[in-house]
Amino acid sequence: MILPAAKPTTDKRELIAALGRFLPDDAILHATEDLRPYECDGLSAFRQTPMVVVLPRTIEQVQKIMRVCHERGAPVVARGAGTGLSGGALPLGDGLLLSLARFMSILDIDPANRTMRVQPGVRNLAISEAAAPFGLYYAPDPSSQIACTIGGNVAENAGGVHCLKYGLTVHNILKLKLVTMDGELLTFGADGLDAPGFDLLALATGSEGMLGVVVEVTVKLVPKPETARVVLAAFDDVEHAGAAVGAIIAAGCVPAGLEMMDNPAIRAAEAFVHSGYPVDAAAILLCELDGTAEAVADDIERVESIMARCGASATRVSRDEAERARFWAGRKMAFPAMGRISPDYYCTDGTIPRKHLPRVLRRIEALGRKYELPVANVFHAGDGNLHPMILYDANRPGELERVEGLGGEILKLCVEVGGTITGEHGVGVEKINQMCDQFSSAELTQFHAIKAAFDPEGLLNPGKAVPLLKRCAEYGGLHVHGGELPFPELERF
Amino acid sequence: MILPAAKPTTDKRELIAALGRFLPDDAILHATEDLRPYECDGLSAFRQTPMVVVLPRTIEQVQKIMRVCHERGAPVVARGAGTGLSGGALPLGDGLLLSLARFMSILDIDPANRTMRVQPGVRNLAISEAAAPFGLYYAPDPSSQIACTIGGNVAENAGGVHCLKYGLTVHNILKLKLVTMDGELLTFGADGLDAPGFDLLALATGSEGMLGVVVEVTVKLVPKPETARVVLAAFDDVEHAGAAVGAIIAAGCVPAGLEMMDNPAIRAAEAFVHSGYPVDAAAILLCELDGTAEAVADDIERVESIMARCGASATRVSRDEAERARFWAGRKMAFPAMGRISPDYYCTDGTIPRKHLPRVLRRIEALGRKYELPVANVFHAGDGNLHPMILYDANRPGELERVEGLGGEILKLCVEVGGTITGEHGVGVEKINQMCDQFSSAELTQFHAIKAAFDPEGLLNPGKAVPLLKRCAEYGGLHVHGGELPFPELERF
Repeated sequence: MILPAAKPTTDKRELIAALGRFLPDDAILHATEDLRPYECDGLSAFRQTPMVVVLPRTIEQVQKIMRVCHERGAPVVARGAGTGLSGGALPLGDGLLLSLARFMSILDIDPANRTMRVQPGVRNLAISEAAAPFGLYYAPDPSSQIACTIGGNVAENAGGVHCLKYGLTVHNILKLKLVTMDGELLTFGADGLDAPGFDLLALATGSEGMLGVVVEVTVKLVPKPETARVVLAAFDDVEHAGAAVGAIIAAGCVPAGLEMMDNPAIRAAEAFVHSGYPVDAAAILLCELDGTAEAVADDIERVESIMARCGASATRVSRDEAERARFWAGRKMAFPAMGRISPDYYCTDGTIPRKHLPRVLRRIEALGRKYELPVANVFHAGDGNLHPMILYDANRPGELERVEGLGGEILKLCVEVGGTITGEHGVGVEKINQMCDQFSSAELTQFHAIKAAFDPEGLLNPGKAVPLLKRCAEYGGLHVHGGELPFPELERF
Repeated sequence: MILPAAKPTTDKRELIAALGRFLPDDAILHATEDLRPYECDGLSAFRQTPMVVVLPRTIEQVQKIMRVCHERGAPVVARGAGTGLSGGALPLGDGLLLSLARFMSILDIDPANRTMRVQPGVRNLAISEAAAPFGLYYAPDPSSQIACTIGGNVAENAGGVHCLKYGLTVHNILKLKLVTMDGELLTFGADGLDAPGFDLLALATGSEGMLGVVVEVTVKLVPKPETARVVLAAFDDVEHAGAAVGAIIAAGCVPAGLEMMDNPAIRAAEAFVHSGYPVDAAAILLCELDGTAEAVADDIERVESIMARCGASATRVSRDEAERARFWAGRKMAFPAMGRISPDYYCTDGTIPRKHLPRVLRRIEALGRKYELPVANVFHAGDGNLHPMILYDANRPGELERVEGLGGEILKLCVEVGGTITGEHGVGVEKINQMCDQFSSAELTQFHAIKAAFDPEGLLNPGKAVPLLKRCAEYGGLHVHGGELPFPELERF
C-alpha cells in the first residue's frame, strides 16, 4: 500500500536551509530519487516517501536536528537498518527521516565488566564479533542479526532464538543515551547494577521510537558456553510437540533455545537447505542445551526422555558443531523457504502462555480452514512466541482481506488465552488496531500520558504503536479489513 | 527524627466518614494509639504519625479509597510490611496510610508456566514455600525475606544474594495490577513473553509507590537447582579479594551469589553466629555455585583456581547442606551482628562497576579515616552492590552529622566511577539529595513528567524518590548535613 502524500505543514526549503547550517551537504537528502530507499522498512506493504532524510554523525547534530524540527512542528521518524517487520520506521510524507546509519562505532569494550558501549548503528552481529576475542557475546539474536542494528533492537525490544534463556534486549542492556524531541540528551541506566528513579531504561526499550532517539547503548555481554548441542525431535502430532514444550520447561530445564516447526514449514525448509529434517513428521522441536559438557550431556538425557514420554517418534542429537549449524539452518531459513512454495506469505507474531500451545495450535488450524488459507508454523515455542505464516497469493482478488481477517483472529486468540499481540516484532503501524484488543481505554490513556511526558506535541514517530481511543472505537465497531489499515497521517498523537 | 505534624488540609472526620461508607470499622484506624505502629518503616530515624490508616481487603475497596482521597486532595502512602530501609513508606501527617497487609492470598500456582499469581501482602518467602512442592522457587531473596512482602519488593525493585544470577524483582515478574491515584485499575505486562506498548511493568517496578498501588503480582518461578555449594575464600588484602570478584565474573562464571565481608564484618559475624570464618583474614569471599552436580564441581574447580591466583590465603568448600547454611549464616546475620559491637550503625547502599571494587574499597577506607569513623563492609560483590556500614554512637555530639557526611561522600564516589546511589534499598526520603548527584536537571525533569503522567496532583507518596530541582539547587549550594534531611511536607510534587 503506497500511502498518499500528506499536505506538508512544514516549509521543505526552509527546513533544508535550517539543517544545512550545521549539517554537511551529504548528510541531507531531499531529491526524490535519493529518498526512495527510505520509503519503507521490512513491512514493505506500507510505503511513504519522506520529505527529507538526514544522516548525522554526532550526538550534537542529532540534538540540533531535533531542535530544528521541534521549533517548526515537523514530525521525525528515526530509522536504524530498516529491518523491522511492523512498520515502526515507516516515514511521514511531511516529516523528516532521521537515519542513524552513520553511528557505527564501537566506543568501548570492557571485558572485566562484560559490557560494550556502542553507537546505535552498530549491527547486532558486529557486537558479538567484537566480543568474541574475549570469549563473550551479545545474547539477543533476532533472525535479522546480520543486518539489524542495536538502536533498532532497543526501539523494538528485539528477541531471538536464545531469548528463552538469556532474555530480551531489555534484559541485556545497561545504559542508554537518548535525545528527546526537544533536543535534550538524557542518560538512563548506569554502568552498575540497577539505577534509582523511575526505570526509564526499560520504558525507552521497546518504545518504538516514540519517546526519544537512541544515540548510544551500553550492552551486557555473556560468556560463550563451553558446549552447545541440539536435540531434534520428530512428532506425529502437532499437539504432542506442543505438550513436550511445556513438559521440558516444567521439568526445570532452561534450554538456550526451543523452537517448533510444523509439517508445511519442515517441508519448505528441508527442500531449501537440506537440514536432514524428517519431512513426514507433523512437527519437529529443536532444543538447544548449552553449558559445560557434563551439564549439557545431563540435560540432553532429560530432554530426550521427556520428548519420548510426550510421544516423539524419533530424536537425534547434533554430534558436532557442523551438525548443530545444519539443524539450525533449516529453522533460520524457514522464512525465505516459504517464499519458494507460496507467491506471498504473511508472518504474524503473538505470544501465549506455554501451557496453551496444544490448544492454540489446534485453533489456528481450524481458523485456517475457516478462511481457506494454509498456515505454516515456525516459532519460539519455549517462549510461547508464535509466528504463524499465512500463505496466499496477493493477485487473487479478496485473498489479502482474508489474510488480514485470519491474522486478526489469531491475535485475538492470543489475547484471549492471556498472551499478547506481539512477541518481538513490535506494533508499529501493522498491529495498531490489535492494541485495542490488548488494552483497556484506561491503559491506552496511560500510554498516551507517558508519550506526552516525553513529547507533548506528538512529533516523534506519530501514529505508531499506541492507537487513539477514537480509532479503537471505530475498529471495535467496524472490525478489521483492508480498507481500514492504519494511515499514520490521520493519527497524529 | 520525629517530623512535626503538618497542618492538615483535609478534614479528618469527614474523610473517615467517607471511608466508613464502604469500609468496615476494623479497616479504619484513627486513634493515636492505633496509628503509632505505622509511624515509620525500616528507616526508623524518620517518624511521622499518619492522619488515618486503612486496611482494605479487596481491589474495589482500594479503588474507592483512592477516589475518596483524590476528590479531597488527600495524599496517600502505600505500605507493605514496612521493612524498607529508605523511608519509602514513611507516612504523612495530613495523609492516609494504605496498608496492604490484608492482601495475603496466593491466588493461583501454575507449575507448567512456572508462574504464581499473588496478592501484594504475600511475604517473599511464602511464595517460595508455596512453590516448593513443585520443585520451584522465587529467586529474588532480600535479607528481609521472612517479613517483606511482594508488593513492597515490586515498589523497591528488591534484590538479594541470588540476584547476581537470577536478576532483580523486575526480571522476575510477569504482570502487575495497579490502582492509580484516581482509582483506575490498570494491568501491565502479560502472562506470555513481553507485552506491546510502553513497558509500564518495568516503569512501575521500583517506582517507590509514586505511580500507583500494586494490588496483584504475577511472579516467575525458577527450578530449584540440583546442587548448590559455597566456596569460602580468605584474603590477606581487601583489594585482592575485590580483584578476585572481577576475575571470577570475567572468566565467565555466573555464581548464584558472590558476597564479600571485610575484617570488622567477619569478626562481628563470627562472634555472633560461629560460621567458622577466618577471623584474621582481611576479607572473605563467599561464592555459591548452583546447577547439576557435575557443573557445580567444574565451576568450583575454576573458582578455587582463580581465587588462588588472585592471592587467596585459603579456600574451603561446603561439604553438605548444613555447612552451606552455616557459611551463609554469618553473612545473613552480619547486620544484627554489627549491633553487638557498635551502639549504632548506618548502612548505606550504592553500586559500582565491578572492576572498580579494589579502588573504591581503598577510597572508602581513606574516607573513614578522614571522618574518624570505622566502616565495615558486607556486600553483594558480584553485583558491585556495596553496603558500607558506618559504626558510630548517636549519643556523641556531632557524630551523626559526620556519619551523614561520610555516607554522602561514599555515594558520590559511587556515582563518580559510573555507579548508582542505591542498589536495592531505594531512594525514599533517605537519599533524595543524592539523586541530585546522580541525575541532570533534564533527567529529573523527565522523572517529574512521568510522575505527572500518572498522578498530576502529586498525591501519591509525595516527597519521595525524585527531588524537586529547587531542592537540588539548595543541596548543591549547601551540602548535606543533619538539619537538611528531607522533610516530605515541604516537597509535595
